[in-house]
Amino acid sequence: MGIMTSEAYLASLAKQKPVVYIGGEKIHDVVHSPYFRISLEEMCKFYDWANDERTAADFTFRSHLIDERVSFWTHLRETPEDVRRMIEVMKAQNARHFCSMCMITGLNVLWAVTYDIDRARGTCYHERLKAFFRELQTNDFRYCMGVMDPKGDRSLAPSAQADPDLYLRVVERKTDGIVVNGAKLHTSNAPVTHFIFTCPSGVLTEADRDYAVSFAVPVDTPGITYITRPAPGPLTSRTLENPVSGHIGFVECLTVFDHVFIPWERVFMCGEWEFTKNLIQYFSPYVRMCKGTCTSARTDILIGAAALISQYNGTARASHIRSKLTDMMIASEIGWGCALASVAKSVMHPSGIPIPDSSVANAGLYHSRLRFIGFLGTLQEIAGGIVTTMPAETECLNEASRAYIDKYLKGVDGVPTEDRLKLLYFIQDLTASRFGGYLTASAVCAGGTPETNRVEVFRNYDLPQKIRNVKELCRLA
Amino acid sequence: MGIMTSEAYLASLAKQKPVVYIGGEKIHDVVHSPYFRISLEEMCKFYDWANDERTAADFTFRSHLIDERVSFWTHLRETPEDVRRMIEVMKAQNARHFCSMCMITGLNVLWAVTYDIDRARGTCYHERLKAFFRELQTNDFRYCMGVMDPKGDRSLAPSAQADPDLYLRVVERKTDGIVVNGAKLHTSNAPVTHFIFTCPSGVLTEADRDYAVSFAVPVDTPGITYITRPAPGPLTSRTLENPVSGHIGFVECLTVFDHVFIPWERVFMCGEWEFTKNLIQYFSPYVRMCKGTCTSARTDILIGAAALISQYNGTARASHIRSKLTDMMIASEIGWGCALASVAKSVMHPSGIPIPDSSVANAGLYHSRLRFIGFLGTLQEIAGGIVTTMPAETECLNEASRAYIDKYLKGVDGVPTEDRLKLLYFIQDLTASRFGGYLTASAVCAGGTPETNRVEVFRNYDLPQKIRNVKELCRLA
Amino acid sequence: MGIMTSEAYLASLAKQKPVVYIGGEKIHDVVHSPYFRISLEEMCKFYDWANDERTAADFTFRSHLIDERVSFWTHLRETPEDVRRMIEVMKAQNARHFCSMCMITGLNVLWAVTYDIDRARGTCYHERLKAFFRELQTNDFRYCMGVMDPKGDRSLAPSAQADPDLYLRVVERKTDGIVVNGAKLHTSNAPVTHFIFTCPSGVLTEADRDYAVSFAVPVDTPGITYITRPAPGPLTSRTLENPVSGHIGFVECLTVFDHVFIPWERVFMCGEWEFTKNLIQYFSPYVRMCKGTCTSARTDILIGAAALISQYNGTARASHIRSKLTDMMIASEIGWGCALASVAKSVMHPSGIPIPDSSVANAGLYHSRLRFIGFLGTLQEIAGGIVTTMPAETECLNEASRAYIDKYLKGVDGVPTEDRLKLLYFIQDLTASRFGGYLTASAVCAGGTPETNRVEVFRNYDLPQKIRNVKELCRLA
Amino acid sequence: MGIMTSEAYLASLAKQKPVVYIGGEKIHDVVHSPYFRISLEEMCKFYDWANDERTAADFTFRSHLIDERVSFWTHLRETPEDVRRMIEVMKAQNARHFCSMCMITGLNVLWAVTYDIDRARGTCYHERLKAFFRELQTNDFRYCMGVMDPKGDRSLAPSAQADPDLYLRVVERKTDGIVVNGAKLHTSNAPVTHFIFTCPSGVLTEADRDYAVSFAVPVDTPGITYITRPAPGPLTSRTLENPVSGHIGFVECLTVFDHVFIPWERVFMCGEWEFTKNLIQYFSPYVRMCKGTCTSARTDILIGAAALISQYNGTARASHIRSKLTDMMIASEIGWGCALASVAKSVMHPSGIPIPDSSVANAGLYHSRLRFIGFLGTLQEIAGGIVTTMPAETECLNEASRAYIDKYLKGVDGVPTEDRLKLLYFIQDLTASRFGGYLTASAVCAGGTPETNRVEVFRNYDLPQKIRNVKELCRLA
Repeated sequence: MGIMTSEAYLASLAKQKPVVYIGGEKIHDVVHSPYFRISLEEMCKFYDWANDERTAADFTFRSHLIDERVSFWTHLRETPEDVRRMIEVMKAQNARHFCSMCMITGLNVLWAVTYDIDRARGTCYHERLKAFFRELQTNDFRYCMGVMDPKGDRSLAPSAQADPDLYLRVVERKTDGIVVNGAKLHTSNAPVTHFIFTCPSGVLTEADRDYAVSFAVPVDTPGITYITRPAPGPLTSRTLENPVSGHIGFVECLTVFDHVFIPWERVFMCGEWEFTKNLIQYFSPYVRMCKGTCTSARTDILIGAAALISQYNGTARASHIRSKLTDMMIASEIGWGCALASVAKSVMHPSGIPIPDSSVANAGLYHSRLRFIGFLGTLQEIAGGIVTTMPAETECLNEASRAYIDKYLKGVDGVPTEDRLKLLYFIQDLTASRFGGYLTASAVCAGGTPETNRVEVFRNYDLPQKIRNVKELCRLA
Repeated sequence: MGIMTSEAYLASLAKQKPVVYIGGEKIHDVVHSPYFRISLEEMCKFYDWANDERTAADFTFRSHLIDERVSFWTHLRETPEDVRRMIEVMKAQNARHFCSMCMITGLNVLWAVTYDIDRARGTCYHERLKAFFRELQTNDFRYCMGVMDPKGDRSLAPSAQADPDLYLRVVERKTDGIVVNGAKLHTSNAPVTHFIFTCPSGVLTEADRDYAVSFAVPVDTPGITYITRPAPGPLTSRTLENPVSGHIGFVECLTVFDHVFIPWERVFMCGEWEFTKNLIQYFSPYVRMCKGTCTSARTDILIGAAALISQYNGTARASHIRSKLTDMMIASEIGWGCALASVAKSVMHPSGIPIPDSSVANAGLYHSRLRFIGFLGTLQEIAGGIVTTMPAETECLNEASRAYIDKYLKGVDGVPTEDRLKLLYFIQDLTASRFGGYLTASAVCAGGTPETNRVEVFRNYDLPQKIRNVKELCRLA
Repeated sequence: MGIMTSEAYLASLAKQKPVVYIGGEKIHDVVHSPYFRISLEEMCKFYDWANDERTAADFTFRSHLIDERVSFWTHLRETPEDVRRMIEVMKAQNARHFCSMCMITGLNVLWAVTYDIDRARGTCYHERLKAFFRELQTNDFRYCMGVMDPKGDRSLAPSAQADPDLYLRVVERKTDGIVVNGAKLHTSNAPVTHFIFTCPSGVLTEADRDYAVSFAVPVDTPGITYITRPAPGPLTSRTLENPVSGHIGFVECLTVFDHVFIPWERVFMCGEWEFTKNLIQYFSPYVRMCKGTCTSARTDILIGAAALISQYNGTARASHIRSKLTDMMIASEIGWGCALASVAKSVMHPSGIPIPDSSVANAGLYHSRLRFIGFLGTLQEIAGGIVTTMPAETECLNEASRAYIDKYLKGVDGVPTEDRLKLLYFIQDLTASRFGGYLTASAVCAGGTPETNRVEVFRNYDLPQKIRNVKELCRLA
Repeated sequence: MGIMTSEAYLASLAKQKPVVYIGGEKIHDVVHSPYFRISLEEMCKFYDWANDERTAADFTFRSHLIDERVSFWTHLRETPEDVRRMIEVMKAQNARHFCSMCMITGLNVLWAVTYDIDRARGTCYHERLKAFFRELQTNDFRYCMGVMDPKGDRSLAPSAQADPDLYLRVVERKTDGIVVNGAKLHTSNAPVTHFIFTCPSGVLTEADRDYAVSFAVPVDTPGITYITRPAPGPLTSRTLENPVSGHIGFVECLTVFDHVFIPWERVFMCGEWEFTKNLIQYFSPYVRMCKGTCTSARTDILIGAAALISQYNGTARASHIRSKLTDMMIASEIGWGCALASVAKSVMHPSGIPIPDSSVANAGLYHSRLRFIGFLGTLQEIAGGIVTTMPAETECLNEASRAYIDKYLKGVDGVPTEDRLKLLYFIQDLTASRFGGYLTASAVCAGGTPETNRVEVFRNYDLPQKIRNVKELCRLA
């Protein structure tokens, strides 16, 4: 069918029986658990957008693999124009909804890597992946990328760890499949998707060949356990507080694989450690381009909020406010500009997909993500100390205290105090809450850290050419 | 007695009957309200330190006003050495306890301002303040500085606001006292102190003379209402999570004055708008010196946490980690160095107290507070994404999930997983929680904003002298 | 002919008789003046590249206006691909030769503006410009853009100045042409080009309509005087010192128009002040995109030099060196990425040329130009204090002192001291010379200042849309 | 006599016969060489200030060593107050004269190091140094610190270099003295001083014991050769251009020691490699405190110039100008504040001199020196492109071109064009000249690089204490 409805999605979840721990207990019904309320609301939106004619143009695509319209999540981008269109939707969408699930680009990356392995080794990973892709597209399934390993002692390679399971690995190869052990971290929303799709988290050497493994399995495959934390927002929706975190956010999981059997038709890499280099080489520009886009879009939200609260506070014309907004705009444009440039400089991979430029994508993201952290403070500065000292909504909703609040938390004449309160709660939600912590983490840790960006820029920038130029200018042989 | 015990303090609170709203209701017993648990724990510490011989040297002082030992809160600093010693205690203390209640320097400031007014006008504000001081010292009372007005439309002066009460003001002058109307924001911990002590929040012009008012009254004076929000931490203490915010933090209030009568003996300024300039001129260096110290000390905490988690993660020897720690150390030293320098450059006020240098105090704070925001992200980067995706303590305390957590969230060999969890929860508390939002707010808004620092540097830097030097160098007449 | 040789170019100059002051005297033969040696060497290169089959592909283009191959200087870019190819040549070229004469994009800008005026006013400026274009292309002439006015008191509009000539203006309108008075600053290389081509330097209001004037005239038109300063390099070429500034650089002029007559066929704007807004709107993205490209390419030179001297000094593997190089690479990629993005976001103007995106072009340039200044210091830090304390070439060429220099200025074994000296002189030329001053000026002043970039970002960023998004997120009507 | 006159100084120089190469030749009379004009003018000033009653209070001191008044150069600072007074003079002086010869603090450093060695080893270096000190004081001699070695391959220790002379070393120990070979770089003004005073440039290990050598000898000691470059300014003074570099600046030398004999009484360290650690430990805070002061004072000059040119240009009231000035002021205050703080935190060395705090001194300098580089660009931005494109003074002094210059380079009404020209030439001298290159080098290389500052902060910051605090906060054992 290509496009599922959110109702069908929830029904499909109800049939799955993943092992999930949260709130100190084992959950049997994720669909009705308060801990999953926000995650489900978020997931449903994507189905709804695909089914809504006002948004369908952005969220559905013609797939030539199954010759049907498919969703944003399951579409393979095959040209620079496809990729550009994808990030343009992310830029517009995240400026209103914070996240566009950029993990989906993992599929593009594996598309290329499996092609490389097959060509070099005569394996059939690419065909298996294509079959998996068709299944995803046909049923409009969701999947969670399991990339990051727990990693234990970061100064040691996977096989050198005291506990060999600290990176996900193959512990047994059988005729019909493999058995894996280990865990993946940061597997956002895993229990409310249909598949968990893994790949190695870094470049591996020969000693670590058992760690070079990629596969996809249904989320309720025996042996998988999800140790889960709720989305940052409140368990029940609030009236004034948490306008964002009450509706947007992800359950996060530690996903444990305890001797899980994976049939061969769902294995996409098994031992080919030499190709983890390609994996990272392709993953890096995709994820950084997306995060650069995302960071720019989220910066746009901070800018909008800062500009609006300055209007409500009567400071919109102050030169320092305008200067601060300009600083934020510059960072947003740089993040977005470098994402666009990485697409503009992309090169085609023989598997039929473009690989964006890594150096510029990493450079742009590096800059904008670090500025983003500072802007959380800038937004508080522009809004004022009231962001963290304002009365909770219990006091606003209490008749006895409301009149004083209305009188004293008023901003410029003409703007109702309630509007200002709503905006201030929004800013509180962004900058002084557990959700704000997620925004920070998302800026500095998700999709690799700033330090990773630096490594990638250094690795991909053509330094020998620049040295040759200088030698020529100096007339050095 | 000069020094009270924490038990006596709690008993003294029980006798007060302030009007307090919190959690949607009116509270009658702050001492036993769960909303005030953290605030009270914090307030009691200062009494305990003064009574503990290991810490008494830092927290008690000989006062020549009453010829007894008095507490950190009520001591008047009369020499640069006194002031330096005060900030040295703050530097050491805040690196372990986050806050040293720097609002107390407000007393020093009013000491000087009242002196100025009396000398120019023949009033007797200074004697009244001295009497109030003696009362504070003798009984070891606590007070809350009410400085910030709600301010409504920031582009308009107090008297030009649509509602004249948006800045606290005198509405009636009587023979025995004055009647005031308005509110003060950010009156941290007010309901658990003994006095609320107000002063204007900015420089005023003649049109705003009714707003030039300073006074102190018991917190349960009729007409005062506290619309209150709890400290950022959890209402009940937790086992692993919130090691800081479970014990440190302030109730914040919107303190409303609805036709409150203030007897003349407690009025320290009433209409002398010309002296609001002095007030700001003295307040600025004191509060910025303290905040520069505090920001440095809190940066020290981030540094300690970053260094320790890098040990637990096995990254302590990575050059980029060392470089990031160095960046943080530099900012800490700059904040602290400029605070020390502002004392070293202080000048004596004729009232007998030193006024630290404003330009260097503001410059140092400006730098270190903005860096602090970025370091919240740096700490998360060094700790890793796990800070926001780690399981909640409910999963750690659940036998069924604990074994997997112990296995997979382990860092380097030799450090128990529980130690790493404790540190990660600490980092979560600092960077990804409502308490982290308070740290941000405290860095960018408390004691004036970064923009205020810029204004003060520009105002206090001797630009004409520098222009003269340049003219001389250029041989311009 | 479309493409001229450098010999023909020099011959054509010999026929021109501009009024030129330099070195305290009036020059009669620019072609043989030592003051113009460097400028001419630079100008000739462009002719040579166009005639050299190894470089012709980058420096010649098919023009459909005259249906011949034309030069880099005179080609009209009509598609985003054309513009992208132009900046790609600039990026590669400036990383070896510092400057690609981006002033040439002024022609593209006037192409669009004259079209706008004609369409609105029924004038025939566009046809005149096209005719001028054909003349330039057919003869491969060079021109100098005269944009910046002296501006006197920057707080006053042109017509409000004490001296009305402080902006170039029309003083008389005649049947056959106009008479102009005033001056243009920073008219680089004007006396060694064929035409001086002017336009207003800012947005004008109706009161300043006489200042809304654009035209092109031969450089030796009566009434024009060039008060000139030599290129920053030495008057005579040196052996070791000044490897760059001895061969690259521009004569700079104050070009005075003292009642100069301009025939109508060479006038492209005369009084249409409303269109100065369009002029700036088109000029801004073109020049910032070019300067962003240029700044990136020059940063590449600094990176190459820093990397090479670190090899010569034996510090190439130090982590802080690698980190500093990475900082420089990031800035270079951001400058270049935003230039590419501004092309990728360009929109077609009805006159048939693309207008790049202004906001992203300005943002990228803003960032990279300010970083560039800092990198001049970084390069010195990496090279060492020897850059400014090393013996002059007179000592290196003196037998008596050479042996000690060879012995003591040696770096790593295997690199001859002379190679290190050459590189150090190169770095000296870039960072500690009058030419280094030009590089700084070029980074911060040429093509508008950083402050202008900020203004343009603020003006072009879609702030109302971002505010709407936030209102939606806050559920504000 | 304690204080010499400048006439006596010049006469004393005439008696010295150092071997000096400059301008391609061997110089026999430094006093009358045009290459030394600027250096001598600079050196004489210090003698004149000491003899001028208006400045004597800052430049002369009572020495208890010889019980006479002695000069700024030869005075030993024995209390924190002495040191503070020294940097206060530097701060005031450098804001008008750029340099206060902070190399003089080297004497203080050796005072402490020789004391340490003697106490541990029973040597008599300290008495020898004291005797040398008395000689300097009594005769008011000048000396040049020779610290930096050529260093060859920076990745190798001194004794591991291909050429063992790449660090200055003892090649022979004789009964009456030692013979040394090698060179020192950056020995500013050496040929116009009386003594060259050397010490090791870094911490040494046992293998490098021959490199642990410190001594002082007359500048014309046989075997010493000065390969010299002129001060950055013009050989002959100019009318308008180079108002600073025409009068301020140093000859720089490569000082070669070719088997130079040093009598024991002038040797202050010979083989005690373990004490090079103390040397650096004491040198670092002294030199960084001075350079922090100096950088602040030079920033003050940039601020004065920027403020004045903004007045002349009519932009003084623009908010972005004020904001840029404020940025510069903040950096100046931080540099100065941290210098003051390092004195305030100084500890007494048993030899009787204070050692300032290293961490804060390095932190403040690190910040302000890097900002200084950027401010060179800021100053150009505020002044405008005219700084590098303005006509040379030859055109200003030429009647034929002067009228146009007067008309078109005018700024605001009321300021003569000549005043603006003078200021613009001054700014050119600071930011677009070889002297500007010296300012950059002085900011990033002199007294150790920014990277050295980082190393020192990391080394001196009490990290273990901060980790302990965090463990306590986390309740970790």
